[in-house]
Amino acid sequence: MPKYRFKLDFKVRDYECDMQGIVNNAIYQNYLEHCRHEFLQSVGIDFKRLAQEKTFLVVVRAELDYKAPLRGGDVFWIGLNLERVSPIRFAFLQDIFCYPDQRLVLSARTIGTALNEKRRPFLPPEFANLLGPPKIPL
Amino acid sequence: MPKYRFKLDFKVRDYECDMQGIVNNAIYQNYLEHCRHEFLQSVGIDFKRLAQEKTFLVVVRAELDYKAPLRGGDVFWIGLNLERVSPIRFAFLQDIFCYPDQRLVLSARTIGTALNEKRRPFLPPEFANLLGPPKIPL
Amino acid sequence: MPKYRFKLDFKVRDYECDMQGIVNNAIYQNYLEHCRHEFLQSVGIDFKRLAQEKTFLVVVRAELDYKAPLRGGDVFWIGLNLERVSPIRFAFLQDIFCYPDQRLVLSARTIGTALNEKRRPFLPPEFANLLGPPKIPL
Amino acid sequence: MPKYRFKLDFKVRDYECDMQGIVNNAIYQNYLEHCRHEFLQSVGIDFKRLAQEKTFLVVVRAELDYKAPLRGGDVFWIGLNLERVSPIRFAFLQDIFCYPDQRLVLSARTIGTALNEKRRPFLPPEFANLLGPPKIPL
Repeated sequence: MPKYRFKLDFKVRDYECDMQGIVNNAIYQNYLEHCRHEFLQSVGIDFKRLAQEKTFLVVVRAELDYKAPLRGGDVFWIGLNLERVSPIRFAFLQDIFCYPDQRLVLSARTIGTALNEKRRPFLPPEFANLLGPPKIPL
Repeated sequence: MPKYRFKLDFKVRDYECDMQGIVNNAIYQNYLEHCRHEFLQSVGIDFKRLAQEKTFLVVVRAELDYKAPLRGGDVFWIGLNLERVSPIRFAFLQDIFCYPDQRLVLSARTIGTALNEKRRPFLPPEFANLLGPPKIPL
Repeated sequence: MPKYRFKLDFKVRDYECDMQGIVNNAIYQNYLEHCRHEFLQSVGIDFKRLAQEKTFLVVVRAELDYKAPLRGGDVFWIGLNLERVSPIRFAFLQDIFCYPDQRLVLSARTIGTALNEKRRPFLPPEFANLLGPPKIPL
Repeated sequence: MPKYRFKLDFKVRDYECDMQGIVNNAIYQNYLEHCRHEFLQSVGIDFKRLAQEKTFLVVVRAELDYKAPLRGGDVFWIGLNLERVSPIRFAFLQDIFCYPDQRLVLSARTIGTALNEKRRPFLPPEFANLLGPPKIPL
């Protein structure tokens, strides 16, 4: 199991399950987003405050590999890592594991950027600090 | 613009928008799923009936490229194509375009399979007919 | 069946159903809200534009009587009437009927008002026109 | 503040907020349902297992009084009481309070019953034990 920079516990709520009795595919994006926002909050970046200041954190690509279903009442956790993918883009790597056997449920890679008021992409200084300098090829 | 095997019109509902005033990322998976189910229905495959008969259509991977946001009241359509990706897996290729200027909003590739009652993957005969024979390399 | 001032057709989407195979209770509030916003739009009142101008249309009370369940694929319609309940409050009366047999699914009464930027309730002039004058007791 | 039989803590997730920047009306029903299911679980009644056994717990009426909005990141709790309202109906009385000032956010009364496989209402024995005997007028 990889090391994670941030972890968050969750419990499946019954209304998140669909007629197959398992958590609906779209709900995982809710879980992943909440984990990202909690991580950002933990390092001093507030999604809501940024939106009020017209800096919009947006997802440009999401890749989700569904490995096993979650069901009503399951308790699980999300592990999160972060990496820079370009001068103005960053990727969240997130895995979902279900208690008690640590079964891998989902792996996701979510690429984001920030948009200014004119919806032009840029990297806010808070993120530059978070990510470290871009890797410069020799 | 590519040719699509199936198209479906939608209108954004205000409750689908988040505090940024745009449709939340996860909601696109709802739209895409509804379009897939309507397409399947149109060719005689009923997601709900299959679930009742313990054949579960499931997503194993989703890739979503977010190109432009949708906002409250926007009217848009989804175009869908289908292709076989392995003996027991198929992919839905779906694009979302917003009226009236046909702006590309999102492109997605969703890979699915079916699980039997024991949750073993297989290709139901309805899908085999739909997809045509697997391509045999010469 | 009562006369309605506004009607809107819907189709249940599979993701709106829960593990009981029926539309989840909370989803009906989504349907009702979308119908109210479409009605308001039809008479020139734009929920989104009002929010941008810091006039917030809010619900202060909702009463929902669940009469029969909706299931995946059901096609239904909502009928809407509007009445004034106080100088600054109005009520939407909404009923949901399922095709093809016009079975009554749900009856709801939703009381709303508007809040200004300081979150003080008031009745925007658009609503005063819509509702007519308050009834004056003789 | 009344005494409650069961309490549950929550935190607002940003995706639960709408374009007004506040939790959408329908989401409160999600919160209330999750709290009810957790309470039932705590007294040995499992909504999911009952559904699998074709006993469907359903809501027949919901009344929600919205007192103040919740916003992204707010931490709140729900207090729950239960009372019998007829031989086969019971009511959940639930209040939502926001930390840290214990501001009242919402009061709700949700009337439920159980349906058997033929969708006829009845009171499962687990509920009879939970509620005590019906009050007999002298």
